Amino acid sequence: MCALKIQDLDLSYQPLPGSRKIYKNGSVFPDIRVPFREIVGKSKETLIALYDTTGPYMDLESQIDITKGLSPIREKWINDRGGFDILKKSTSIYRQERESDFSLNAIRFPNAYKPRRAKTGQNITQMHFAKKGVITPEMEFIAIREGCEPEFVRQEVAEGRAIIPANINHPEAEPMIIGRNFLVKINANIGNSAISSSIAQEVEKMIWATRWGGDTVMDLSTGDNIHETREWIIRNSHVPIGTVPIYQALEKVEGKAEDLTWEIFRDTLIEQAEQGVDYMTIHAGVLLQHIPAANKRLTGIVSRGGSILAKWCLTHKKENFLYTHFEEICEIFKQYDVGFSLGDGLRPGSIKDSNDTAQFGELKTLGELVKVAWDHDIQTMIEGPGHVPLNRIRENMEKQVSYCNNAPFYTLGPLVTDVAAGYDHITSAIGGALIGWLGTAMLCYVTPKEHLGLPDKNDVKDGIIAHKIAAHAADLAKGHPKAHQWDNAMSKARFEFRWEDQFALSLDPETAIKFHDKTLPEKDAKTERYCSMCGPNFCSMKISHEVRACADTKG
Amino acid sequence: MCALKIQDLDLSYQPLPGSRKIYKNGSVFPDIRVPFREIVGKSKETLIALYDTTGPYMDLESQIDITKGLSPIREKWINDRGGFDILKKSTSIYRQERESDFSLNAIRFPNAYKPRRAKTGQNITQMHFAKKGVITPEMEFIAIREGCEPEFVRQEVAEGRAIIPANINHPEAEPMIIGRNFLVKINANIGNSAISSSIAQEVEKMIWATRWGGDTVMDLSTGDNIHETREWIIRNSHVPIGTVPIYQALEKVEGKAEDLTWEIFRDTLIEQAEQGVDYMTIHAGVLLQHIPAANKRLTGIVSRGGSILAKWCLTHKKENFLYTHFEEICEIFKQYDVGFSLGDGLRPGSIKDSNDTAQFGELKTLGELVKVAWDHDIQTMIEGPGHVPLNRIRENMEKQVSYCNNAPFYTLGPLVTDVAAGYDHITSAIGGALIGWLGTAMLCYVTPKEHLGLPDKNDVKDGIIAHKIAAHAADLAKGHPKAHQWDNAMSKARFEFRWEDQFALSLDPETAIKFHDKTLPEKDAKTERYCSMCGPNFCSMKISHEVRACADTKG
Repeated sequence: MCALKIQDLDLSYQPLPGSRKIYKNGSVFPDIRVPFREIVGKSKETLIALYDTTGPYMDLESQIDITKGLSPIREKWINDRGGFDILKKSTSIYRQERESDFSLNAIRFPNAYKPRRAKTGQNITQMHFAKKGVITPEMEFIAIREGCEPEFVRQEVAEGRAIIPANINHPEAEPMIIGRNFLVKINANIGNSAISSSIAQEVEKMIWATRWGGDTVMDLSTGDNIHETREWIIRNSHVPIGTVPIYQALEKVEGKAEDLTWEIFRDTLIEQAEQGVDYMTIHAGVLLQHIPAANKRLTGIVSRGGSILAKWCLTHKKENFLYTHFEEICEIFKQYDVGFSLGDGLRPGSIKDSNDTAQFGELKTLGELVKVAWDHDIQTMIEGPGHVPLNRIRENMEKQVSYCNNAPFYTLGPLVTDVAAGYDHITSAIGGALIGWLGTAMLCYVTPKEHLGLPDKNDVKDGIIAHKIAAHAADLAKGHPKAHQWDNAMSKARFEFRWEDQFALSLDPETAIKFHDKTLPEKDAKTERYCSMCGPNFCSMKISHEVRACADTKG
Repeated sequence: MCALKIQDLDLSYQPLPGSRKIYKNGSVFPDIRVPFREIVGKSKETLIALYDTTGPYMDLESQIDITKGLSPIREKWINDRGGFDILKKSTSIYRQERESDFSLNAIRFPNAYKPRRAKTGQNITQMHFAKKGVITPEMEFIAIREGCEPEFVRQEVAEGRAIIPANINHPEAEPMIIGRNFLVKINANIGNSAISSSIAQEVEKMIWATRWGGDTVMDLSTGDNIHETREWIIRNSHVPIGTVPIYQALEKVEGKAEDLTWEIFRDTLIEQAEQGVDYMTIHAGVLLQHIPAANKRLTGIVSRGGSILAKWCLTHKKENFLYTHFEEICEIFKQYDVGFSLGDGLRPGSIKDSNDTAQFGELKTLGELVKVAWDHDIQTMIEGPGHVPLNRIRENMEKQVSYCNNAPFYTLGPLVTDVAAGYDHITSAIGGALIGWLGTAMLCYVTPKEHLGLPDKNDVKDGIIAHKIAAHAADLAKGHPKAHQWDNAMSKARFEFRWEDQFALSLDPETAIKFHDKTLPEKDAKTERYCSMCGPNFCSMKISHEVRACADTKG
């Protein structure tokens, strides 16, 4: 018996107005079906086919039963490559305990897989294949999605400039890539905290986040039943899932950082890797040597993982166990193709603390660890700040590129001021747009509730849209042809007063329609050559057409 | 009998939580009272005194009767300087007609002034005094507000790098300055259109806009009773008021651009100048020679004024009458100290059209006109785009500085993408932050309803806050010490878990409180060392304090 049913979710979503899901097939691998959000004009013609993160949820043809999970679209590709065993049971002690606890039956996902794990001596990571010159189906999928050559995808992954988060235990995920030479991506954080939120809410947030453009989702749960919540999320997620395993490890020691051990942490890594987590934040750069500088700051250490590890280090007067066991973590990650997201445990939490010794000292350490990970063919990205004023953003990007050998940068903002509590999705979008333009590969969203409380569904949407704007603004600034096509299609529709096409081409058609209809709800208004902003006599675009007509007549 | 009463406005505003209005006195001019928003900490100490745009409306001591208008705080200074006559009646024919129309009594502001006008051969502009080496009370007021020396204010105005919009017929306004070496300002547009909105709504929007940080307000009304609406707004406005007089002129010819004449326009300028409009947008750079390039664009001409004038030029095969009569406009402006906002009638309305020949051709023309205005000692700023991708923003600023000899730049955004209808306050804040950092002096806000409809009160607030963030981010990036003090005070409160101080120090304390209380409404939660975002075990700042304690103990 499983308590969580499809009825528990508010999933009455329709495809976005004016959009329909289409698929493009692969050529080398014909079973590849790459989704796009096709915008259909009022006259039924295709206006543009946009990158689509909504997965099967916005496909009217798809049959979804959340108690079964999504169709494992990558399963055949993973099987064809081989090199792994299917384990009889998880090798995580914790998972074994959870699975034998009958009291959890009511909340347990009923159809968990048996985990895959690479055979000893075999490497099954996308980076490994890329380095060997192999173009995987995941790479061709991505090439179609991004509008480039599969060989280009392979090269970028081989050289570490891009990663494809693709745990072999998460075959439900649609392949996507994170790298500076591709479209800028955004991540949405979900997860319950000790204070609020249920499993159903978290699954729904994941679906909701991808509806509005989330490219990956991080499950940052810190409350009860983290293991079970994550299983529901992963089995129903078509986007890569990231986690910060130290959060769960800390729950296992009842919140006492000093009680953390490598053994507990190691078991947590295996537990999560065998569930299918695609990338994990590992704060291995928080070294004893960097802590004194962080202690002198205005706002100390503001990364949860960073503060936990600093506390552990100082209590035990020992070096960070994630650093001392880094090779062992690599050995685990490569068995499942888990990607590293090397955490910036010492990111600045205020404008004052930005670009300081602690921050850049840690970044340098992360640069050393990238090389270790690459020696194991483990895909790796680097996390970045945080709170940084506009004039100090460029230095962050330049130092990251130089210290970390072009590994993708994944930043939280940066937030360009501290004083806008309640609007930090905007402060973050401003910094995110700038650093995205400069080369950051993925932006972690920030919601309006940042610094104040746990976000709800509306906050998640507002956070996503703001960062989607930032990412797209960066794509435009980088000259991405697909990005420009979108803006041009929108502006053409605007100039031609094709109101319904404008709505359909908007990032959020529902809101665009709602706003227009607030003052002009009549159906006729959708064909008028003005809106309520300027009224009929003052529409510059309408007059502009008259100017053209006049120029044509008079020569 | 006047129909508009204080009861018609929703003015039950209280000062922002944790804030109180204080005044600092002048030293050269002791009757100067410069307002600040003092943030009072929970322990009753002053945390910081912030620049305050809210005027008497948020002063619990002030007595306001909107049928009488605000107290004319600048009256004595204007009188002391002299050089003007008080006219028996307005010299605008249109105003004379309106005033003798009894049917308008019900909507007329009951206590209009008789207009002041400089005596023949006298110059009463702030720039004129600045060039003569005179520090006016307005300049000392601004120096106290901005935290600089009065002599510095004088120099910046004398050299044209900054303007003080201060019509001698708007003595109610608190002096403020727009220039790259001062805090970045923001403007909020209000005004009815033919489709909606009443006088009461517009007056309230003005008060509302300044509550949230609007430094100036432009009345862009295009519907009925523009004259009367404006009188109500100006008499009750403590911030400078800007207009685009071509809008009203067009209403006078029933929306037919080709029927516009210099005579009608001239009378409109006088009408508005004698009411007290502080700066006016004049699209004198839309020349015949620039129109062919604009006609080839994806989105043509998107400035209302620009399209109207282009239509007039082409219909009559004549040069723009604002250009050919520019000297006469100067003669009018200097009689009242009306500032020029030289309009960018050919700003780009789409990413595709940004930085093109039409746009920069017009900018060059504006640069020539600045010099003409300065020869008359008329304060002048230059309007800027528009839709511009991030990578093309710097060129806008550099060309503006070089063509326009450091006259202040006043931009609409720029919006960094076309596809975010419904969220253009964010696309504009992103571009605005960047161009503000690069030297733009004032940002014109854009609301979420841009491109879709007339904004309501919530939209006005959202637009203001987004651009206030952009302006403040620019101030931080420029290294303004007052800006950094604010962020540091906020971050210190955050790190010390002084929740109520954090709320008070926020740009929008009401929203910060509301968001926090959504999950933790209990009074006790305001003293807790965590919030619902991470819960008690996962608050990085709480753990950070433990790390410090640990470091202190263990050395």
